[in-house]
Parts: sequence; C-alpha cells; structure tokens
Amino acid sequence: VRDFYPEDMAVENYIFKTMRRVAESFGYEEYGASVLEPAELYEAKTGEEIVSEQTYTFTDRGGRRVTLRPEMTPTVARMIAARRRELPLPIRWYSIPNLFRYERPQRGRLREHWQLNCDIFGVTGIEAEAEIISLAAELLRAFGLKDEDFEIRLNSRKIMDYCISGVLGLQGDDGKTICRLIDKKNKISDEEFKKTAADILGEKDKLLLALLNSKNFEEFISRLPRDEEAEKTLNETKGLIKVLDGLGIYNIRFDQTIMRGFDYYTGTVFEIYDTDAKNRRSLFGGGRFDKLLSIFGAPDLPAVGFGMGDVTMRDILETRGLLPPYRPPAKVVVCIVEKSALPYGNDLTQKLRAEGVAVLIDCSGRKVGDQIKAADKRGIPFVVCVGGAEVKSGKLKVKELKTGEETEVEEGQLARLLKNRAVK
Amino acid sequence: VRDFYPEDMAVENYIFKTMRRVAESFGYEEYGASVLEPAELYEAKTGEEIVSEQTYTFTDRGGRRVTLRPEMTPTVARMIAARRRELPLPIRWYSIPNLFRYERPQRGRLREHWQLNCDIFGVTGIEAEAEIISLAAELLRAFGLKDEDFEIRLNSRKIMDYCISGVLGLQGDDGKTICRLIDKKNKISDEEFKKTAADILGEKDKLLLALLNSKNFEEFISRLPRDEEAEKTLNETKGLIKVLDGLGIYNIRFDQTIMRGFDYYTGTVFEIYDTDAKNRRSLFGGGRFDKLLSIFGAPDLPAVGFGMGDVTMRDILETRGLLPPYRPPAKVVVCIVEKSALPYGNDLTQKLRAEGVAVLIDCSGRKVGDQIKAADKRGIPFVVCVGGAEVKSGKLKVKELKTGEETEVEEGQLARLLKNRAVK
Repeated sequence: VRDFYPEDMAVENYIFKTMRRVAESFGYEEYGASVLEPAELYEAKTGEEIVSEQTYTFTDRGGRRVTLRPEMTPTVARMIAARRRELPLPIRWYSIPNLFRYERPQRGRLREHWQLNCDIFGVTGIEAEAEIISLAAELLRAFGLKDEDFEIRLNSRKIMDYCISGVLGLQGDDGKTICRLIDKKNKISDEEFKKTAADILGEKDKLLLALLNSKNFEEFISRLPRDEEAEKTLNETKGLIKVLDGLGIYNIRFDQTIMRGFDYYTGTVFEIYDTDAKNRRSLFGGGRFDKLLSIFGAPDLPAVGFGMGDVTMRDILETRGLLPPYRPPAKVVVCIVEKSALPYGNDLTQKLRAEGVAVLIDCSGRKVGDQIKAADKRGIPFVVCVGGAEVKSGKLKVKELKTGEETEVEEGQLARLLKNRAVK
Repeated sequence: VRDFYPEDMAVENYIFKTMRRVAESFGYEEYGASVLEPAELYEAKTGEEIVSEQTYTFTDRGGRRVTLRPEMTPTVARMIAARRRELPLPIRWYSIPNLFRYERPQRGRLREHWQLNCDIFGVTGIEAEAEIISLAAELLRAFGLKDEDFEIRLNSRKIMDYCISGVLGLQGDDGKTICRLIDKKNKISDEEFKKTAADILGEKDKLLLALLNSKNFEEFISRLPRDEEAEKTLNETKGLIKVLDGLGIYNIRFDQTIMRGFDYYTGTVFEIYDTDAKNRRSLFGGGRFDKLLSIFGAPDLPAVGFGMGDVTMRDILETRGLLPPYRPPAKVVVCIVEKSALPYGNDLTQKLRAEGVAVLIDCSGRKVGDQIKAADKRGIPFVVCVGGAEVKSGKLKVKELKTGEETEVEEGQLARLLKNRAVK
C-alpha cells in the first residue's frame, strides 16, 4: 500500500496543484472518469499481451467484466468519441487520474500511481506538437527545473516507418520486431542488439546501425536515401524544431532511437530526459496518435498528448531539492490560559476562520506553556494566548514561535495581521 | 462508468476545493492512501456479512488478497496505529478518498464515489464532538446552505446502550437486533417494526415505542428510569448541545432514533438532515469511535469524525441552485488575423501566461470572425486579435464577448487589465 501521511500528501498536492495551474494557463480543461472501465475498452484496442500483463480485470456481481485502468488514453478516446459532435474543436483537455499497474511481473503486486495527461484533439499541423511540447517544458520550469536540467528528444514514427519499410524493406512482423528492438536499444547490450538486427536484416544491419548511431539530425538525414514523400516527412520534424526554437525552447534534439512503446502513435514522438550525468533517465513522454478514435467506432481525430507520472516527478524534485517544506494548514493556535476564557477563545477562532485565517484552538486544559510547545512541535507559526486580561481588554498578543517576537494588536485587527504576516 | 466531462469535473473540483478550504480553516491536515488495501484490514474488524457484501476483494498476481476500499475509517485507523508514538495529539486529519461499493445487491455493479472524511483523534471530552459538528455545519454554510436548510440530529450510543441493556434488559444478539431495528425505523412500516419489537421484547415493546416516539430530549429523559451512571451519560449529551449553542449552532436536536449502522461507534452519533419538506433525507453523519485502534494492535485512542459524500452534496447543491456556473480556465483567446503575426501572437501568449493569465492561441488560420465565434462558443470571456497593425504599434484591443465592449491597451498593460477585469 502507498500511504500519504500529511507531509507526503502535501507533496502530492503541490505536484497536482502545479500541474493544474500550468495546464490551465494553456487553457486546458480538466476531465475525469471512474477508475473502473469495461474490460472491452482495452481488449478492443489491441490483442497485445503487454496490455493484459499490466492490467487487472475482474467480474463484478452483475456479471460485467471490469478493469482497473492502466492508462488514461483509451478513456479519453472513449469519452471524446461519445460526444464527438458536440465538442468544439480543438479540444484541449487534461486529467490527473490514478492508474493501476503490476509493479514487476516477478512480484505481481498491483500498484496505484497518478499521471497528468494533457491532450489536444483536432489539430493536424505541427502547432499541436509545438503547444504540447511547450506545455511539457513549462511544467518542468514551473517545478523549478532549469532548461539545462532536462532535454527534449524528438522523433517521428513516420520517419521511422520510412526507415523500416522504405529503406530497410521490412514489413509486418519483421518491421514490428525491429521497432521494438530500436525501442529497447538503450536497455540491452550492443551484442544482443546486433544479433537480433543481423538475424532479421542480414547485411542491411550495418545501415540500421549507422542510422541509429548518427550523431545528429543532419547526419541521420544524410544517410537516408529519400523520395519526395520522405522529404516532406523530414521537413515536418525540421519545421517543428524551428517552431519550438521560436517559442524559446532550445533544449531539444532529434533522437532516432525514441520510439515510445505504444502502438497507437502515428507521428511525432518525444521523451524528456533528465540531463543529470548520474541519473540520465526518461522522465516522461508523449506523441501524436491520429488513429485512436476509430477503435471506438468514431471518425478519427488528430491528437497529440503526453503523460507525466507523479512518482518520477516526486523523485526528481526530491533529488534536486525542489520540493517546498511542509507547512501545516493552521497559521495560528488560540491557547486558552483559563477555562473562563474558552467562550471568548471559541468566538475569536470563529471570527478568524470567517476572515479566511486557518486556526485551531487548544481546549486541552493543559498549562499554557505546554500548549505553546505543542503548537511549535506541529510547526504552526503563531500563537495567541487568551486569558481573563485579554477577554477584558480585547487587546491580544500574537507570538511568532520561531523568532519569539510578540506584537500587540486589537482583536479586530488580528485577522489582517495574520493574513499579511509572511512566515519565515 | 462515471465520467466527468469538464463541466462535471468543475463541479467535483468546486466541491473538493470547498471541502479542503473549510477543513483546513479548522487546522485539519490532509492525508491519503492507495485505494488498494490488504483484505485482512476489513476481515480483522468484523466478521459481519454487511462488510463483505459491499466490498470487492481479489487476489493479485503475487498471491495477495487485496480489497478496493469501501470506506476510509479502517485505513486512517491503520495509518495512525502505525505511527501512534510519533504523532502529537490531538490529531486533526481529513481526506477526500474515492471509495468503492456495490450499487445495489440486485444490480451488483461496483461504483466509485468520493467522500470527505474529517476526524479528530486524542480528545476524550465533548469539545471534540463540538469541533467536528461545527466543522460539518461550517461546510454546509460554505456551500451556501442556510441554517434553516439543514438540521443536525444527535444521539448517543451510550444512552442507547443504557436503554437497551439497562432499561429493556436485552443482551447479546437480542440487543443487536433491536439496535438494527431502531436504525431502520424510518425505512420500514410501523407494523413491521412493532412485530419485530414485540417478538423480542414481549410487553416491554410499549416502553421502547414510547421512548422512540418522545417528541424531544426532555420527554425522552422523563420516560427513562435512571441511575447515577445514566445521569452522567445524559448530562454529556445535554452539555454538548449547550456548547454547540455557544458556538452559534442552533439547528440541532436530540433524536433517539439515530443509530448509524457501523458497529464501531461508542458515544455520540449524529446525522445531518435536509429540512426540505419534499426531500427530508439524511445528507451525511458521523460520531465517536473510541475503540477502533485496538483492532490494529495499537492502544485505543478517542476519536470523533464524519464522512460527507460527493454524490449527495452534488445533488443537494444542484437541487437548490447552489452550484457555480461553469467557466473554462482560459480567460482570453489570442486570435491571429494574419499568419505573419503568429510569432508576435506566440510571444504575447507566453508573456500573458508568465504573468498568470490563462490564455489560448488560435492557430487554425481560419477567418478571424470564426475564431471569435469559436471563443464565444467555448465561453471564454475575452479575445485579443493580433494582425500587422498590432505588431507594429504594440497597441492591442481587448474585446469582451458578452458585452462587445472594446478596450485599447498597451501590450505591457494587457496582463494587468485581464487579471483585474471581473467576468460578468
């Protein structure tokens, strides 16, 4: 089980809040759905083993087969297909669903995690890719990452399809095997890669290796024999890099080894990498998937999107010291010095809340010194002690626990003072 | 499946946001946990059939039996038991978990819903009940309900235990049967009630009916033969009503038919009712449960809490017209009059976002009139059209779509204007 004690929950909330703020600054609207989907949703899509290995499907008491969703894309495709005619295009949607997957085949534990999904539907041109990629970059910046902390690696499934079928002459299963091989190139040994490549490609394996090992886009292109159609495809990716450049996104490069596992990508694919030399890993990614809606019986709709997981983000922000410190919600504790002051204390507490100050009252009856210590231990920054004198005069002393500084204030001014006092 | 298109999601978010704001104004800290719990968590608690009928348990690939949580209380008890020594008391925690239950035994469909859970742990005295009940009342007020729109009905399990064992002389299963009978009194016919009561109580059924039919707390008490212990129990509930009166909560009354189904309640129980004559129903409820932690092998801790469901709240707010209208996140659309103005438009869009204005850009290339119409159709309140003239002069016209009003502004002032302009 994954538990979130308040300190951990605050981190999740900080991550979700930042995701929401940035997605909405791009005009993206939030949607959601139950984690339970009819099993057919996933079976319709592909017969691939990988899907069923990662999902959990069961039969409910009404005899329906239900799946705990492993990803959000089939859900959003289903929802859009259902209202295809009413929704004005382009559709800019985001969601932060909880998803379920088996941790590792060996352990077989079903785990829950969260993932920001941002998608734009209805735009054919590369301005969709440009928007989605700048949204992804803006998110990382909003979390405090600098442009040199991450790198956006870009590829196009269309280019790769051209390489595999047009240049290497592979079709059907052989093509798919090579696709998967390229996808896992960085995870397997060079020997293993070469062996499988040679098995399928024979002498052409050298061409594949030369293509994959090209140092940059220009070198890659120069090795590629190309016709008019290929030229067009290449220009699309070049054009996208140029548009992103115009949007101030320079930490981007073409990478012909980026494939992204999912079969539903049809064009641009990208993956964002941590540039930390000790931890050079993929943070998240996405791409264009223009053919997904037809699976749900709806006319296809061009679409570009990405998914960003909470676990990876939390990890990178923790590593880089970018998570904000925990602060409990209450800004002040009302301490009760004498029992007779309790009604006044209750009244004060209610007034502060009504003015938007988060406050808790200590009704424990213990010594006031212990009440103050308890407030401090909880990390609550201020206390106001209320006894007979305060009830009589209506003058209150606000004490900042970190500095010991005391400020006297009229009761009516207390809320304003607390709202405006920054916490060190 | 329960889908949340943006309009519906905005309602859920409004409800969750209000819940968070009010709970935090009382200093409650948010916690969370995965929806998957080890099945033993629920089996340890009770062997009762009602639990297994409402929960869904399955075996994961690692051979572990896992349950989709039907309620949050066992989870919070488990989490507190695990950190019993480190957590300073009292613990004020809240959560808005998604929970799973079968819709109705006949249909057998597993449904997901959300529920705000607020609990205070570590307070023996009625100030805990007072705080939890005022938090519940404050929540309803924050949603726009007036005090006359709802009524808080209060009872005490201790009083009822005294009635059942001390006054009616029932023990064990007979006592439990009468408890459940009282719990469903308002759901079954008078005949059915009387029959079961007479079966168990014989002649004493008249006393039970007289007690349950008492018009108010005084009448109820007057019918109750009582010893010193009983007097103490009654005074506790009287005291609570008085404290709540001091906190400005007057829409409260004693109701000896409130039992709350769960076995884990040990003292005060309460339920909040809609006072609408056409729809007099229970909205939500809670109570004191002092003995829950020992089930998890930890020393017991006094606890009071409640759970408030999203479906019921949504329903009552909808009925009363208290839900805010939907507004898409973007406040303005940047329309591109000529393609040459696109770089300027992109730049403007980025500047606005950097200053905290949610904005989207229309790169469709369609006629500007159509771009404006599309913005209006989406409910986005403002547009700024950018063409050659604007690029040259840096003077921009902001158009409010509802009124048609246009305001000319220097580019550098646009963000400020948009942030400060209220939307009608």
